[in-house]
Amino acid sequence: MATIDDVLGTIDANLPASTQRLFDLLSIPSVSTDPAFTQHCLRAANWLADELKGLGYTAEVRETPGHPIVVGHAKAKRADAPHVLFYGHYDVQPPDPLELWETEPFAPRLADGKTGKEIVARGASDDKGQLMTFLEACRAFEQNGGLPCHVTFLFEGEEETGSPSLPAFLAKHREELSQPGIALVCDTSMWNPTTPAITVMLRGLAQEEVFIRIASHDLHSGMFGGPVNNPVHVLAKIIADLHDAEGRVTLPGFYDGVPDIPEDIAEQWRNLEFDQAQWLQDVGLAHVGGEPGRGIMEQIWARPTCDVNGIVGGYTGKGSKTVLPAQASAKFSFRLVGQQDAKSVLESFRAFVRARLPADAKVEFLNHGASNALQLPFGSEALSRARRALASEWGKEAALAGCGGSIPIVGAFKRDLGMDALMIGFALDDDRIHSPNEKYSFTSFHKGARSWARVLDALAA
Amino acid sequence: MATIDDVLGTIDANLPASTQRLFDLLSIPSVSTDPAFTQHCLRAANWLADELKGLGYTAEVRETPGHPIVVGHAKAKRADAPHVLFYGHYDVQPPDPLELWETEPFAPRLADGKTGKEIVARGASDDKGQLMTFLEACRAFEQNGGLPCHVTFLFEGEEETGSPSLPAFLAKHREELSQPGIALVCDTSMWNPTTPAITVMLRGLAQEEVFIRIASHDLHSGMFGGPVNNPVHVLAKIIADLHDAEGRVTLPGFYDGVPDIPEDIAEQWRNLEFDQAQWLQDVGLAHVGGEPGRGIMEQIWARPTCDVNGIVGGYTGKGSKTVLPAQASAKFSFRLVGQQDAKSVLESFRAFVRARLPADAKVEFLNHGASNALQLPFGSEALSRARRALASEWGKEAALAGCGGSIPIVGAFKRDLGMDALMIGFALDDDRIHSPNEKYSFTSFHKGARSWARVLDALAA
Repeated sequence: MATIDDVLGTIDANLPASTQRLFDLLSIPSVSTDPAFTQHCLRAANWLADELKGLGYTAEVRETPGHPIVVGHAKAKRADAPHVLFYGHYDVQPPDPLELWETEPFAPRLADGKTGKEIVARGASDDKGQLMTFLEACRAFEQNGGLPCHVTFLFEGEEETGSPSLPAFLAKHREELSQPGIALVCDTSMWNPTTPAITVMLRGLAQEEVFIRIASHDLHSGMFGGPVNNPVHVLAKIIADLHDAEGRVTLPGFYDGVPDIPEDIAEQWRNLEFDQAQWLQDVGLAHVGGEPGRGIMEQIWARPTCDVNGIVGGYTGKGSKTVLPAQASAKFSFRLVGQQDAKSVLESFRAFVRARLPADAKVEFLNHGASNALQLPFGSEALSRARRALASEWGKEAALAGCGGSIPIVGAFKRDLGMDALMIGFALDDDRIHSPNEKYSFTSFHKGARSWARVLDALAA
Repeated sequence: MATIDDVLGTIDANLPASTQRLFDLLSIPSVSTDPAFTQHCLRAANWLADELKGLGYTAEVRETPGHPIVVGHAKAKRADAPHVLFYGHYDVQPPDPLELWETEPFAPRLADGKTGKEIVARGASDDKGQLMTFLEACRAFEQNGGLPCHVTFLFEGEEETGSPSLPAFLAKHREELSQPGIALVCDTSMWNPTTPAITVMLRGLAQEEVFIRIASHDLHSGMFGGPVNNPVHVLAKIIADLHDAEGRVTLPGFYDGVPDIPEDIAEQWRNLEFDQAQWLQDVGLAHVGGEPGRGIMEQIWARPTCDVNGIVGGYTGKGSKTVLPAQASAKFSFRLVGQQDAKSVLESFRAFVRARLPADAKVEFLNHGASNALQLPFGSEALSRARRALASEWGKEAALAGCGGSIPIVGAFKRDLGMDALMIGFALDDDRIHSPNEKYSFTSFHKGARSWARVLDALAA
């Protein structure tokens, strides 16, 4: 019976052919946002379905209101093997501005980069190259007796436009797609070129716009200023009251469900190679803000926030105007972690606002969404196995990372399929995704496939 | 020797001819803002100069970079009489929208209004009708042995466009125009149709725009929110800190020079006929805001304020955007009273802002002007005399009013000529100035002329 080393050897031996297959996929300009490329999106979907069928799997290109979704199923060599759902996306960002590309964006090539060979093309890193690491791992298993896990493949074509068709598709095919097991998502980055990463936390997001009105119309600040209250002041007081002097959010109940970070994870984060000075300098800063004593990683990955994303009221043109504004408004967003409940946070927020309105002030709330944080428990068995697998491949522990932003598809897997996700990806920070001359490290492609082989093997062990 | 009653009798007898003279002036479309009417502005200036000459006074139409200014001088019958400077303006607002006028705006007519006869035409109230009340008072004195005061006349043609040429003109002719004595300005309103008013306080105005920047560019609030400070929060905290819970401005030294209101004045204000509920309802409110326990009149006339006239930062379009703004800005204005020093207030404000900036925050200030309040001392002799004169004519005490806004020309008289001003006018709140079908009460015109006769007589007594 074949061992994991046999599978890894096959991946190594397949590499030239694997690269050619990736080049074939990269040469299809499957830009999802531009209707002029609709046929190319369909071509890419068909190409992937054909690949799956070529490996002996079932595969269908299924229609959605937008671009099609490819669904495939592969059986493991053992019937009692665990099940995984693998997600990737075949659509890409537009290549514009074209004049900044050194070569054609849909004519993939190998180039020499500063850390070795690179695959240069639109979609090389986001997400075709990443997606193909998994397919090549599956191929190697098939050449060595079969898969260790049952696999459901889900390739969508609208990730770059916000996955508008995915939630309804998941709901419709829930029974087919939702097997006990974990989702594997390959659309994230390594910590650095030699350190793999598993993203285990995604902050949630609750957004609410607030409009405060007092007078029925804008007034002359000389004729009315004083006895008529100013909605900008009322709004400013609300914003100011939302944080205490330690940078903590003051909403009652806000920190309910915010977990402490386990000491071993905190220790790992402290020891991650991270150039704090450079990170700050890149955005024009020299000091860490926010909650005193908490590092950047901790704050972005594991702490909730409240931010005003926009504010407007009164006269905002050039020069001055002695107006007493009738209205002021602001867009608030709350990044959530752990078990914080987005709906409760918004309820607390609305009460907080209402409690600060003077007589005659009217408030209107406009919701822009509310999603809880997603967190794979640090003690999860699948996580432990994936960590061991990645450590074997890379020779060092994977960073257990958070992600300050949200990844809507992962929320959809949790909400619509009830599945947790392991986010493992091999992109690098300098891959220029969404930008000209996008590239994917050849090492990422090669060791990415080997990593997936080890992860599948470990999950089934 | 003629008595004041003789003069008043002459005014009464002259009334038909006075009205015709006002109609002549009103028929000249001296719209200052529209270059198409430049010749008509000159015509109005010449018409006024001819009127003055017709009364035996010297008069010149003097060029400015804009519309001309008419300067005249009249000698009193007694060489040792006091001197006054009378100001009015001959320019008017455009009559648009023309279709809303019941008759031609520059074809003056007498109409029956709800409280008696009204003179209907553009400029009837603002300011030709008011200006002519003073000229007709002078005419009546001339027909009764001469003026009781030396009078300098100053008629400008750019009041409706912000008097851009006036300050330089005053500075240039300072020696000629600045005699010991008081300025008389006829461009304000009665308290109500039966109660005259003297405006004795104008709030000052200091304006400063503040820009706060933190990161070098807008950031993703998920990827940076937390460890990177938000300039909207910083600005909101500054705005919130500027007022205490009692509505008082917290700037150090802000209330230096803010006078207490003498009890007799406060008593008068409390007893003025004033429909507070209506005032509030007109702007959609039911409650008095600002400093608790202080009435509307007191707050607008005699209390300083701090207002944000405009604020903007981050994304202000439709929907949501998870942006951590790089910049936020706000336009602040301070209404000043009594002896408050506008420059000191702005210095205190800038220090207040700087003291609230976190590390890495940068601030920029953009000044939009600073003028102190103007206040005729309540104990002024000229004011006492004018009050007695108006009480004789109207049978009730004149309201000693403030004005929440600023009147730049009055500031210019103080600054450039060193002269205090008595602002006495006979306009009514429903005169529709700047609007279609502007009118001036015939009673205002008639009793306005009689009032000026009594005031001139009282000032010389």
